[in-house]
Amino acid sequence: MAENKNQKLKKYNKNLNYSYTFGAFPTIELIKAKPDAVLKVLISTSFVDNPAYLKLSEDCGRLNVEIQVNDKLVNRLSPKDNCYVVGVFEKYVLTLSENESHVVLVNPSNMGNLGTIIRTILGFGINNMAIISPGVDIYDPKVIRASMGAIFNIDFQYFNSFEDYLNCFKHHNIFTFMLDGQCSLQDFDRYDSSLYSLVFGNEASGLESVFQSYGKSIRISHSEKIDSLNLPISIGIALYQFSKNKF
Amino acid sequence: MAENKNQKLKKYNKNLNYSYTFGAFPTIELIKAKPDAVLKVLISTSFVDNPAYLKLSEDCGRLNVEIQVNDKLVNRLSPKDNCYVVGVFEKYVLTLSENESHVVLVNPSNMGNLGTIIRTILGFGINNMAIISPGVDIYDPKVIRASMGAIFNIDFQYFNSFEDYLNCFKHHNIFTFMLDGQCSLQDFDRYDSSLYSLVFGNEASGLESVFQSYGKSIRISHSEKIDSLNLPISIGIALYQFSKNKF
Repeated sequence: MAENKNQKLKKYNKNLNYSYTFGAFPTIELIKAKPDAVLKVLISTSFVDNPAYLKLSEDCGRLNVEIQVNDKLVNRLSPKDNCYVVGVFEKYVLTLSENESHVVLVNPSNMGNLGTIIRTILGFGINNMAIISPGVDIYDPKVIRASMGAIFNIDFQYFNSFEDYLNCFKHHNIFTFMLDGQCSLQDFDRYDSSLYSLVFGNEASGLESVFQSYGKSIRISHSEKIDSLNLPISIGIALYQFSKNKF
Repeated sequence: MAENKNQKLKKYNKNLNYSYTFGAFPTIELIKAKPDAVLKVLISTSFVDNPAYLKLSEDCGRLNVEIQVNDKLVNRLSPKDNCYVVGVFEKYVLTLSENESHVVLVNPSNMGNLGTIIRTILGFGINNMAIISPGVDIYDPKVIRASMGAIFNIDFQYFNSFEDYLNCFKHHNIFTFMLDGQCSLQDFDRYDSSLYSLVFGNEASGLESVFQSYGKSIRISHSEKIDSLNLPISIGIALYQFSKNKF
């Protein structure tokens, strides 16, 4: 993807084999965590005077990544007017570890939520996430932005079905989070050390009742005054409880 | 606000003495929880065939609230194309209870977050919320929408300063949530029964260090891989822990 091929950089869509970070902070995270994936960094003229420019140019220099000043291209690619830095990177394929606990999202549909979830699980020491298809495109710049760059510090993998996931990870204890889960999270004490997979459904529809039969089903008990907690908050609470002995 | 004065219904701004619910679900919540505040309900022609119409028209009939079919007005007032129901209601003034625990938000700035927070605290049995000015306008339809109507089931009150709040509620135990809080939430056991105020800062800047000196400061311990948890998730986790003995 040489400089003279800039014309070919397209506005993001999920079929591209590259994606973008918009803004200095996620771009710095990208360069730090996934240096081999970086293709180039584009900046606006006005960013050269920004204090973060020095840090960015040092990082790029060390890794031999090209920084290109190109206002027109930054404006064309980025969704908002106030974006001055664009990282261009090649999508990469990861596989989850058998020796780590996982969060499993079944059919997540909201990009902002997914980014927030990534940041939250990383905060509680989980860096393996499975997505059961169909689900939102994790490489969409909206997800990356909402994750504040945390996406570059987790491993993620898509599976065609929950059964496919289970076949790969037979030794994980499965906990499915459901409104009618059989035991209440509030009754859990500090959780022991075995590997676990915490499974959450779609924002609107949750997990189908068949998920009652995988492992143990859990509800986060709440008042009847609301229908449900929102998905990122449910995941934050679940991870808080499951990681209590680590923090 | 009679029918012939519809021309005067303006697009929402915070200086109006009325506001709107957009969508059938929050409008039904409004009518159920704050019937005296409802001025009228506007619907689009296409909504008459919707199953929710029957429920809405029954509720309105019982309370003698006018339902008006007016596509043009619905379109003019609502922010999105797919809104078919608008509730119009008069803003009301509430005061917090001395006999209830509170959540206190210092200078909240994000409307979507505020709505999510309202829904979450209600889910954990808190229905008193203080906002320390300056803070986002709780009556903005974006807040109401994000709360999914939960706003109509809580009491809220604005205060000019945190000192003003403290002067009104001298018997609440104050817990301030800060990145450098002195004790870790994870070390709390089920909390006792005394009244408490959980205090949270602005999304971007948190609480100033002076808040270390009010009551007890708490951190939600997390890995160093993220700078902070987001505000609604922090509040969800704090309330989960503080309300554990109730659920």
